[in-house]
Amino acid sequence: MVTRHRVVIVGGGFAGLTAARTLRKQAVDITLVDRRNFHLFQPLLYQVATGALSAANIAAPLRAILAKQANVRVVLGEAVGLDAAARQLRLADGNVLPYETLIVATGSRHHYFGKDAEWEPLAPGLKTLEDATEIRRRVLLGFEHAETAEDPAARAASMTFVVVGGGPTGVELVGALAEIARRTLRGEYDRIDPAAARIVLVENSARILGQFPDDLAEHARRGLVKLGVEIRTATRVTEIRPNGVTLHHGEQDERIDAGIVLWAAGVRGQAFGKVLADHAGATLDRGGRVQVAPDCTLPGHPEILVLGDLAGMEQDGKPLPGVAQVALQQGVYAAKLIADRLRGRVTPPFRYRDRGNMATIGRGHAIADLGWMHLSGFTAWLIWLFIHIMYIVGFQNRVLVLVQWAWAYLSRNRSARLITGVKDQPGT
Amino acid sequence: MVTRHRVVIVGGGFAGLTAARTLRKQAVDITLVDRRNFHLFQPLLYQVATGALSAANIAAPLRAILAKQANVRVVLGEAVGLDAAARQLRLADGNVLPYETLIVATGSRHHYFGKDAEWEPLAPGLKTLEDATEIRRRVLLGFEHAETAEDPAARAASMTFVVVGGGPTGVELVGALAEIARRTLRGEYDRIDPAAARIVLVENSARILGQFPDDLAEHARRGLVKLGVEIRTATRVTEIRPNGVTLHHGEQDERIDAGIVLWAAGVRGQAFGKVLADHAGATLDRGGRVQVAPDCTLPGHPEILVLGDLAGMEQDGKPLPGVAQVALQQGVYAAKLIADRLRGRVTPPFRYRDRGNMATIGRGHAIADLGWMHLSGFTAWLIWLFIHIMYIVGFQNRVLVLVQWAWAYLSRNRSARLITGVKDQPGT
Repeated sequence: MVTRHRVVIVGGGFAGLTAARTLRKQAVDITLVDRRNFHLFQPLLYQVATGALSAANIAAPLRAILAKQANVRVVLGEAVGLDAAARQLRLADGNVLPYETLIVATGSRHHYFGKDAEWEPLAPGLKTLEDATEIRRRVLLGFEHAETAEDPAARAASMTFVVVGGGPTGVELVGALAEIARRTLRGEYDRIDPAAARIVLVENSARILGQFPDDLAEHARRGLVKLGVEIRTATRVTEIRPNGVTLHHGEQDERIDAGIVLWAAGVRGQAFGKVLADHAGATLDRGGRVQVAPDCTLPGHPEILVLGDLAGMEQDGKPLPGVAQVALQQGVYAAKLIADRLRGRVTPPFRYRDRGNMATIGRGHAIADLGWMHLSGFTAWLIWLFIHIMYIVGFQNRVLVLVQWAWAYLSRNRSARLITGVKDQPGT
Repeated sequence: MVTRHRVVIVGGGFAGLTAARTLRKQAVDITLVDRRNFHLFQPLLYQVATGALSAANIAAPLRAILAKQANVRVVLGEAVGLDAAARQLRLADGNVLPYETLIVATGSRHHYFGKDAEWEPLAPGLKTLEDATEIRRRVLLGFEHAETAEDPAARAASMTFVVVGGGPTGVELVGALAEIARRTLRGEYDRIDPAAARIVLVENSARILGQFPDDLAEHARRGLVKLGVEIRTATRVTEIRPNGVTLHHGEQDERIDAGIVLWAAGVRGQAFGKVLADHAGATLDRGGRVQVAPDCTLPGHPEILVLGDLAGMEQDGKPLPGVAQVALQQGVYAAKLIADRLRGRVTPPFRYRDRGNMATIGRGHAIADLGWMHLSGFTAWLIWLFIHIMYIVGFQNRVLVLVQWAWAYLSRNRSARLITGVKDQPGT
């Protein structure tokens, strides 16, 4: 048997998984390495965090997705080292994976602007399923604490939610929180009115949704205000405490007592970027992203490709955003590049085609920037729904998500409102 | 406004929740206290542990279930103390709940026959959602470790599952494990054949399913053997190690190297029984159950009722089993007793009507003892399915469970095969 070209892919997110699947008919042997046994549909994590969907609805086992693809092998493991000269990747369990082509697509993690150690435990972000269930736990416990609190100030603080970061994730989180407070939990408590919850969205720049056109961002702003969300733009967070935040706006400091602070502000490249810097001469930008050539390869190492959130790439003088669309297109591109090389062909540089941006603002309400057209309201939400369901990997999840959403939409109920995890047991 | 009769219910399981709902038209003020914010359908926990259902499919928020019942209030909290003379229940957060009638239905927890401290971390049981996801994590990681293990003995051990306890829970667990190994995971690994997994069921007494008639237990035994399960009856577990167990059978000791050991053997009453013993003169039996009068009340305290798994009650010289049916019927009985007392009527003693026992043995296969009739095979499984879906609280869960099961049955797939929790990240 002839040894085939070995492709090792690190990371089973949008970029890595797409690359693996696009290579299915090529004469290559693929090994897909991930720390988790599932592919996660991150754009819907906020729905898990707010109890509308279950974890399994937005995650699919990598082995199940790739079971019928003969040229791929899945390895559960963490990439920790690299011998670029010998072309070998080293895993935490000591195993070594030799490659002819290495694709690195390990994504991004939260970044608290130098205050990671202090702020991360106080203000969880939303990147993993564990993040989502932790946020769900905190939000639901906030209402429970308010219900039993005797002191009015403590009660108000327990029902105050501060979300830091006015991008799509922050906007979708506050929209979903407002839905829960104003609609889902209505009538379920005796001593508190969940609708009295205070929801504050903090954004550093002059307006929310900076990557959207003015009219759509303004539409979203009005939608959130209508849902009772307080929006603080041109405002910095200067302190996060166990029970609140300090905001800085103009020359003024404002302290807000808040039981729950959530982080949707900054991300940086995952740790494997450092390994590429140390062992393959990669240059990292301030956000920990690996600077790549226009063909997604690492300068000096044409056999190493870096894709998705971990890759730092400019197009028309602007950095590409860390969104699923970029990762998906780079995954397809990487597979094509490898196929071309096997045939001795040259591949033109990667070119991102922005097919539009969307964000939801609560129930049945979204904005969509399709470039040639701006949509808002229910139509935009239907398009958002359609696109997201179509993308979710695996037929089963798609049907279940549709049923669960249809039900949530009709009943205004949320089934996955479970406070789980060890810390939720009062007294333990 | 006249102060109404106050009923405090501790525990939102089958007994407590049924009592609360049955009292909905009575002139009483009910407070339902639970440590968790949801009602859990425990009989299906093994389906979560084996990845067929999501946590939210078998759990429903107590507040949502009771939102439309005006005479009930839900409190998230842990009952830790009692002043029986003053008729006050004390919670861990310091709050005090006065009552005219107290219903205690806190259920049972695992019992490792005096070896709790040593064995519990090594052999998790199946009582909570956290237990279920922990078992799911261990089972799936077992196959992952086998896939990357270089040593054949280590590989075999990683794929060896020992379940201790041959009652319905143990039988349903091994049946589901066999399904996963032989069917669900087929073709998803490169180096191992999941069907080669070894599944051992250990039972102390002479046969499995002691509470079932001989013919049905024998049918189940044959069904499990057909699925490749090794059944060891008249066998005691004498040691549980991090990587295996020692069994004792006849005069022989047998060591089995097993990556995963699960506990389905013994339960005892929850800790609140001790509070009743210390502060209300309750007598506990060896299993920590509170001995109650034939009307479910605590001797000497007619205003305190103990229901469900925590209650120790005999009928026709035999102790009542710790099953959902008993808890449900006692919940209805307790509500009737309270209603009768408000009207000055006397209620006849509680009488358990055994409507039959069921257990599943893998996909589309069950046994049912209806007393007047013994059923087995697919018909029994359809009845089992129907009864369980009908009982699941809340319309949404019922529909979703049905869709998920229908899909799992048709596709032989399992969607909720997610390894979650902090410990699953190799290298951390």
